[in-house]
Amino acid sequence: MRVLITGGGGFIGRRLAEALLRSGTVTVDGGAPQPIERITLFDSVAGAGHPQDERIEPVTGDITDRAAVEGVTARADVVWHLAAVVSAAAEADFDLGYRVNVDGTRTLLEALRGTGRRPRVVFASSFAVYGGDLPPVVGDEFHPVPQSSYGTQKAIGELLVADHSRKGFVDGRSLRLPTIVVRPGKANKAASSFASSIIREPLAGREVVCPVGRDTAIYILSPRRVTEALLRAMELPESAWGVHRTLPLPGITTTAGAMVEALQTVAGPAVAGRIRWEPDPAIQRIVETWPVGADARRARSLGFTDDGTFDAILLAHIEDELGGASAIAR
Amino acid sequence: MRVLITGGGGFIGRRLAEALLRSGTVTVDGGAPQPIERITLFDSVAGAGHPQDERIEPVTGDITDRAAVEGVTARADVVWHLAAVVSAAAEADFDLGYRVNVDGTRTLLEALRGTGRRPRVVFASSFAVYGGDLPPVVGDEFHPVPQSSYGTQKAIGELLVADHSRKGFVDGRSLRLPTIVVRPGKANKAASSFASSIIREPLAGREVVCPVGRDTAIYILSPRRVTEALLRAMELPESAWGVHRTLPLPGITTTAGAMVEALQTVAGPAVAGRIRWEPDPAIQRIVETWPVGADARRARSLGFTDDGTFDAILLAHIEDELGGASAIAR
Repeated sequence: MRVLITGGGGFIGRRLAEALLRSGTVTVDGGAPQPIERITLFDSVAGAGHPQDERIEPVTGDITDRAAVEGVTARADVVWHLAAVVSAAAEADFDLGYRVNVDGTRTLLEALRGTGRRPRVVFASSFAVYGGDLPPVVGDEFHPVPQSSYGTQKAIGELLVADHSRKGFVDGRSLRLPTIVVRPGKANKAASSFASSIIREPLAGREVVCPVGRDTAIYILSPRRVTEALLRAMELPESAWGVHRTLPLPGITTTAGAMVEALQTVAGPAVAGRIRWEPDPAIQRIVETWPVGADARRARSLGFTDDGTFDAILLAHIEDELGGASAIAR
Repeated sequence: MRVLITGGGGFIGRRLAEALLRSGTVTVDGGAPQPIERITLFDSVAGAGHPQDERIEPVTGDITDRAAVEGVTARADVVWHLAAVVSAAAEADFDLGYRVNVDGTRTLLEALRGTGRRPRVVFASSFAVYGGDLPPVVGDEFHPVPQSSYGTQKAIGELLVADHSRKGFVDGRSLRLPTIVVRPGKANKAASSFASSIIREPLAGREVVCPVGRDTAIYILSPRRVTEALLRAMELPESAWGVHRTLPLPGITTTAGAMVEALQTVAGPAVAGRIRWEPDPAIQRIVETWPVGADARRARSLGFTDDGTFDAILLAHIEDELGGASAIAR
C-alpha cells in the first residue's frame, strides 16, 4: 500500500506518518490491514523533522502544480489531504488562501481522478466552516455560513471532495476538525494558535501572550485523537458514509481561562504566571465566529471520540511532547 | 446606472431586462430609484431575442475569459449573475460545469473586485444545492448536501459570493431559486425542463413526453415571481442580509400529475392528452434529490412571495407567453 500525505511536513502529517509506521499497515474501507510500502510526505517546504524510516519519501512541491501533484498521485493508493494555508494567513492573503486551499484541493482531486483507480482520500476540513448566528451546540445538519476565507475555502473543499466521490472519481471522506490542542513547535498563523501557545510555551519556561479573553470558549481535540480520527476515517467502509461525505468530529468545549487554571493545577503558579493577557481584536473576532460545541452524533455513532477532559489533553501533551512531568520548566 | 446581466441572452435575463426597461430605473440597497443608462446582456451565444431598446447592449463572450468579463464589469454598477450550465448538462459534462459555474463565477467576482467600486451582485443559486436525506420542508438553516454537480457548483458559487462580500469586494446576495415554471421556448438540458414542457408544449398543440412519474413532487416559482425576487434582492438594503448572503426563496409544492390536472381543467382534455408518461430513470433520479418544500421564513419576512397556487402560474403563463386563452391550441 502506497500512502500520500499532503502537508506531510506539518505536525499532524508527522504524527499520522509515525502512527502508520508504528502499525506498519493501513486499513482501508473496512478491509484487512495492508502492509505499507511507502509513505510520501508532500509539502511546500522541505522539512527536517521527517520520521527516519526507509518507507518515508519526502517530496517538496506546490499543491497547485498539476505536474508535481501528478508525480505523487500516480503512485498513491490512499491519500490524506492535510495541506492548507491556515486561518489567519488565509484571511491576511486572500489570493494565497484560494490558490492553495481551493485550487490546490481541486488540482489534487483532478490528479487522483486522472489515475482512474478511484483512490481513497481523507480531507482535513475544519469547524471554521461554521459562523454567524450559531446555536450553543451545532448539530450535524446545521448549515455552514463561514465568516472567514479559510472557513469558506474548507467548505468548498468539502463540496469538491463530495462531488468527486459521488461521480466515482475518488472515495473521499471529509472530517471537520475542532481546534487542535496542544500543537508542539512554534506558533503559526492560525487564529487558533494561542490555544496551544498558552500551554506549550509556559511549560517550556517561556512567556507568552494570550490574544483572547479568559472567557473565550473553544472547541478542541488533542493530536492523539485527531490522528486516530484520520486513521478511522480511512478505515470505515464506504457504506458507513452514505450521502454524507463530511463529518463534524466530537471535541470538548473549554475556555482559555479554564485551560490556564488546569495548567496551574498541574504545573504550578510559576508556570501559569508566564501568560500575559493582551487581547488582539483581530484574533478575538475570528475565534468568536467559530462554534463552541457540537453534538457530533453521527461521528460518535461511527466510533469517533473526544478527549473527555482538558486535563487528559494536557497530560497527554506532557507525555508525548515533553517526555514526562519532570521536563516541565517549573 | 449601468446594469450587467450575465446569461442575459436566456429567458430569465430577458424577462429581467424587460422589467428594468419598463420601470426605467433600478433601485439598489434601499435607496431611491436611479435611471438606467445601459443594460449589458452578456451571454456565451449571440441571441436574437433581445428587447429592442437603445439602452440594451448585447455582448457575446465566455464568462471564464477574464479579459472579456473585465470588458463588461468595468462599466457595471450592478450585476445580476444568471449565467450557468444547467443541471443535466453539468451532470453530463463534469468539466464544462465546473468551468462555467465555478470558474466563471470566480472570474466574474475577481473582475468586480478589480474595479475597486464594490459593485452590487445578485447571484441566481438553486434549490439543487440541497440533497440526500431531506425533511419534507427544508428550513433556512438546513445544510446543503448536493447530490448533483450543478448543485455542488451553485453551493460553491454562494460561498464565493458570501466571502467576496464579507471581504468588501462586492455587495453580493444569492437567491436559491425553486424550479422555474413555466419556461417558454424550447426544452433545455435542465433536469427540471419537463416541468415547463408538460404545460407549454400541449398548450401549443405539440405532444410531449413527461420523463417523471405523476407523483413526482416539485417546488416551483413562476417567471413573474422570480423576476420580482431578482429585483427585490438588489433593492434590499445590505443591513437586511446580515451574515446571511444566501436566501432560500418561497415557492409552492405540487406534483407533475396535479399540474396536468390543472392543465386539463383550464385547457381541456384534448390538450392534457398530448402528454405521454415515459419515465426516464436518469432524470427521475436527479429530480428526486431536490427538496419538495421549504419554509423560507427569512425570505418571506423580507417581502419575497410565492404564487399561491399552480392555477395562478398556469394563467400567468397563458397571459404572458400566449397572449391569452384564445391562443391555446385546443
